Amino acid sequence: MAQGLKVLTAVLPQDVKLETQEYDLGARRWHATGETLPDAELESLKNHDAILLGAIGDPSVPSGVLERGLLLKLRFAFDHYVNLRPSKLFPNTATPLAGRPDIDFVVVREGTEGPYVGNGGSLRTGTPAEVATEVSLNTAYGVERVVRDAYARAAARPRKKLTLVHKNNVLVHAGHLWKNIFDKVGAEYPEVTTDYLHVDAATIFFVTQPERFDVIVTDNLFGDILTDLAAAVTGGIGLAASGNINPSGAFPSMFEPVHGSAPDIAGTGKADPTATVLSVALLLRHLGYEAEAARIETAVAEDLAERSGEVPRTTDEIGDALAARVSG
Amino acid sequence: MAQGLKVLTAVLPQDVKLETQEYDLGARRWHATGETLPDAELESLKNHDAILLGAIGDPSVPSGVLERGLLLKLRFAFDHYVNLRPSKLFPNTATPLAGRPDIDFVVVREGTEGPYVGNGGSLRTGTPAEVATEVSLNTAYGVERVVRDAYARAAARPRKKLTLVHKNNVLVHAGHLWKNIFDKVGAEYPEVTTDYLHVDAATIFFVTQPERFDVIVTDNLFGDILTDLAAAVTGGIGLAASGNINPSGAFPSMFEPVHGSAPDIAGTGKADPTATVLSVALLLRHLGYEAEAARIETAVAEDLAERSGEVPRTTDEIGDALAARVSG
Ligand SMILES: CC(C)[C@H](C(=O)O)[C@@H](O)C(=O)O
Ligand SMILES: CC(C)[C@H](C(=O)O)[C@@H](O)C(=O)O
Repeated sequence: MAQGLKVLTAVLPQDVKLETQEYDLGARRWHATGETLPDAELESLKNHDAILLGAIGDPSVPSGVLERGLLLKLRFAFDHYVNLRPSKLFPNTATPLAGRPDIDFVVVREGTEGPYVGNGGSLRTGTPAEVATEVSLNTAYGVERVVRDAYARAAARPRKKLTLVHKNNVLVHAGHLWKNIFDKVGAEYPEVTTDYLHVDAATIFFVTQPERFDVIVTDNLFGDILTDLAAAVTGGIGLAASGNINPSGAFPSMFEPVHGSAPDIAGTGKADPTATVLSVALLLRHLGYEAEAARIETAVAEDLAERSGEVPRTTDEIGDALAARVSG
Repeated sequence: MAQGLKVLTAVLPQDVKLETQEYDLGARRWHATGETLPDAELESLKNHDAILLGAIGDPSVPSGVLERGLLLKLRFAFDHYVNLRPSKLFPNTATPLAGRPDIDFVVVREGTEGPYVGNGGSLRTGTPAEVATEVSLNTAYGVERVVRDAYARAAARPRKKLTLVHKNNVLVHAGHLWKNIFDKVGAEYPEVTTDYLHVDAATIFFVTQPERFDVIVTDNLFGDILTDLAAAVTGGIGLAASGNINPSGAFPSMFEPVHGSAPDIAGTGKADPTATVLSVALLLRHLGYEAEAARIETAVAEDLAERSGEVPRTTDEIGDALAARVSG
């Protein structure tokens, strides 16, 4: 987070006054007070132009507490229906894929519906007769707005290709809703080439032909899975940025690295801040600072291209190098 | 299918009389009669020791009709709760992964519950007010039996390692059911090393460290996704075999390649029958013909190791080569 703010400060024009407010949320706060995201802080967050979220999570906190009580609460409360996750294989970065395919796609993951709604429960919990359910909720309202966003993004890119990923041969109700809306909106974008893949088949192409993808639109859970895989094939989760966007502007959008909090290396100076710095670029683009966003992305590409990789750099050193490049 | 039966016939001892019955199910039948799996045929199938299923599906049939009406109907009707999918990187096969990691794991995918139960619906279908749901149903009964099967398999393997894959930080109800049962049964297997991964993180390790996996147990949908990815990293879906197993023996188990029906190359002699032949090996092992199963697997490994790859072989030629090896 410190490196993200360092680069943000360095890239902004002199006349732009940056005001930041820090919110102490996450594992430490929960341990100290039992709170995840009190109402007052949720209210206060609404007054900001954007949120930069440090990765959350710690093994000392029961699974789900911070995820549902903080991260997902923010995504739902601020109606972040476009979860934007670009994947690009930068030069001079390691990929587990042989032959280094040309990867440059963006996943538009739905952020407010699907299996993430928290609708479900458990009966006779802990007994041999337990039944547990999880309900995926999908609405035409929610699907259409994210599909429209994805078409607009595809139309604005050189290749103009949009792939819908779902599992409509098994999840027929949600799947048909997605497919029908995808086809309907597509009629308004004759210049966009479209494609449909089942999620299982999509994972195959992520490793065998990732260059075939341009923009992908998919539901909340499939998007979660696919974007981690995408991060892995494009040089690792240390480089994957994301935006939780409310395109209407009614609520602040939120930007965060795709990776977790890596509690095992916290404070050691080994964490790669690049994903956070790239998330700052997405934040700037969202607020209209296109030139500054592009400067950060260029700085990252150059930094990766020129690093020798012989001596590992500390978190601070990478942040300093990027800040120097963007202000230069 | 013809090659699978050819190899099956070739591998069986002289004194074993093989009786086969062909069922004409799938796209052709559906087009001709509108039927997917009539009750009489479902009843008749019960009288067999095992089922070998050719890949189903055709773009001319609406998505979901054959999947739900035939394939999933069989899995549910015959209570195939262990969906067994081994992944092994054979020598001399192409993998998209650089550095050719050593891959040899098996996914035990739950086959009768989760988001596959067909529980859900759509309200105001096709209107801007549509709501569509998919309900994942999970029971202690269903989870415990597949988790027990997975522990037993892990305990019988040299590395004795079992990984549970779920998403229990978001799908908290189903996730906690799985995790609690996984931990509880684990107490009976102190020799098995256990691990838990969220499904998104698991996809990362499938491409960065697949050698870390030995046995994986997971739910129906996550298993569907992970096994296609596993097939991709171990040389492609042309080699991936699977068994839909009812360990109690109350119903016949069913064996099938993981791949689809590839209607674009049907009848051209280009399809690789290896996944079907390896499914025959799983079938034989299930029925107690361990030596014959191992002979088929050795034949496949040798066939792959010795092929030149210069001239592509036809479906028939590969089948003949494998049949010759197993009978030799
Ligand atoms: C931490 C978790 C709740 C989250 C998600 O599943 O969305 C993460 O995996 C992500 O992709 O942002
Ligand atoms: C065809 C489809 C219904 C099936 C599944 O989703 O289980 C297939 O993808 C598989 O993995 O066997």
